[in-house]
Amino acid sequence: MPISPPISQADIDLAGRLADAAGAAIRPFYRAAYGLEVKDDASPVTLADKAAEAAMRRLIIAERPMDAIVGEEEEARPGSSNRTWVLDPIDGTRAFISGRPIFGTLIALLVDDWPVLGVIDQPIIHERWVGVVGRETTLNGIAAKTRVCRELAHALLATTSPALFDDGQLHAFEHLESETQSTVLGGDCYNYGCLASGHLDVVVEAGLKLHDFAALVPVVEGAGGRMCDWAGDPLHKGSVGEVIAAGDPARIDDILDALGCRGHQH
Amino acid sequence: MPISPPISQADIDLAGRLADAAGAAIRPFYRAAYGLEVKDDASPVTLADKAAEAAMRRLIIAERPMDAIVGEEEEARPGSSNRTWVLDPIDGTRAFISGRPIFGTLIALLVDDWPVLGVIDQPIIHERWVGVVGRETTLNGIAAKTRVCRELAHALLATTSPALFDDGQLHAFEHLESETQSTVLGGDCYNYGCLASGHLDVVVEAGLKLHDFAALVPVVEGAGGRMCDWAGDPLHKGSVGEVIAAGDPARIDDILDALGCRGHQH
Repeated sequence: MPISPPISQADIDLAGRLADAAGAAIRPFYRAAYGLEVKDDASPVTLADKAAEAAMRRLIIAERPMDAIVGEEEEARPGSSNRTWVLDPIDGTRAFISGRPIFGTLIALLVDDWPVLGVIDQPIIHERWVGVVGRETTLNGIAAKTRVCRELAHALLATTSPALFDDGQLHAFEHLESETQSTVLGGDCYNYGCLASGHLDVVVEAGLKLHDFAALVPVVEGAGGRMCDWAGDPLHKGSVGEVIAAGDPARIDDILDALGCRGHQH
Repeated sequence: MPISPPISQADIDLAGRLADAAGAAIRPFYRAAYGLEVKDDASPVTLADKAAEAAMRRLIIAERPMDAIVGEEEEARPGSSNRTWVLDPIDGTRAFISGRPIFGTLIALLVDDWPVLGVIDQPIIHERWVGVVGRETTLNGIAAKTRVCRELAHALLATTSPALFDDGQLHAFEHLESETQSTVLGGDCYNYGCLASGHLDVVVEAGLKLHDFAALVPVVEGAGGRMCDWAGDPLHKGSVGEVIAAGDPARIDDILDALGCRGHQH
């Protein structure tokens, strides 16, 4: 794990303004009338995605012209610093199109490929988790804390959809499920916010892209939790997208054991 | 299908006050600190459930002493009229304990065992769908309308969890899934509100109790949708709890076909 340089208050403030800009771009499209839920170029969710990413990029380019940008919608913009802004304007497309106000805008800042700042922003009900390496995570400015989980058998587990696992991952996940208390489905990035606030114990997913997971790491870890991949290694730009979040870091080994992933790489 | 007697404005107003009372009882327990997510007698979700049901019962007993009451938490109270209030203080227990503001309080009024009034109330983000037979469904007082769905292949489908199906039901559901556009998981009663407002096309579930489905029927049907069981029959007190909601009634036969349920009772 590299030693991360400090993030300035100006960076944190900028991340907040990025989330504000994304939310303003997204809200007009939420629950707008439309018949097609597919993500074609004319669908409201795509329009919202593109408008939100464009608004965030404009701010970054104006204020941090040296930094690289990686977003879900547009081509990556190379930078000349060791910093990369990673943007997912709407994480939880299906939640968005279903009219559920638990999708989120994800904003991360990587330094040397490691996530050091993360924002999970829900722009409809105005909930914003902010995580910065070395600081306490906040939800709407108030400290967020994960909860203790003394035994995996008591854990409340979440995943967005088992359909996102391949066969081997599904088998591993079902074994984990059999060792936990109960499972809640759906939720996308919102699950990681709820874990950071002490309402969920474990979130396990796979197939995530950098823009899906980078922002989650500082949020969860700044709240006292731990994130890693299915091999137990920390998440960074090169991770394959198999993601574990544990509210109680003491349960990470149990989760890896239950997934059958201890001691071997996936 | 029986002809339902008219519901009075006073009944609708009372249903609104029941939802207000339930919400006031529930909110203090939402996201309250607790470690145990199991539904034992001391858990906040059970305390919230009991407090909300008790608050609603007090109002009904005071104002409609002749009416019967069926609730999730307490014993049924027999009545001396042909009317029954059906109460589910917290539908979506796992959403509630996970900190997701998309659980709901369900309130239904049955006349002669048929649901004629339904409320889906989300007390955290203050969304209330009200459906009354013969009237337009409203969301926070504004008319809610389901959307047209010209082909099942374009439908957005929702179900809370495939784990709630038995093997035969799961097989039928997976076949339906294969004929629709995409599936969103989680959501509980909130899915039926989103369908009533035109954001989802189909919701299919099984294993529901009367208190889980009674309120949904007037909400969905007053918005232009249709609800029925997996045999295509209307839902009433004696239904087994296999539930279909379609935003576009023209798709009901396609849904029954895809489930493999046409022409034979389950």
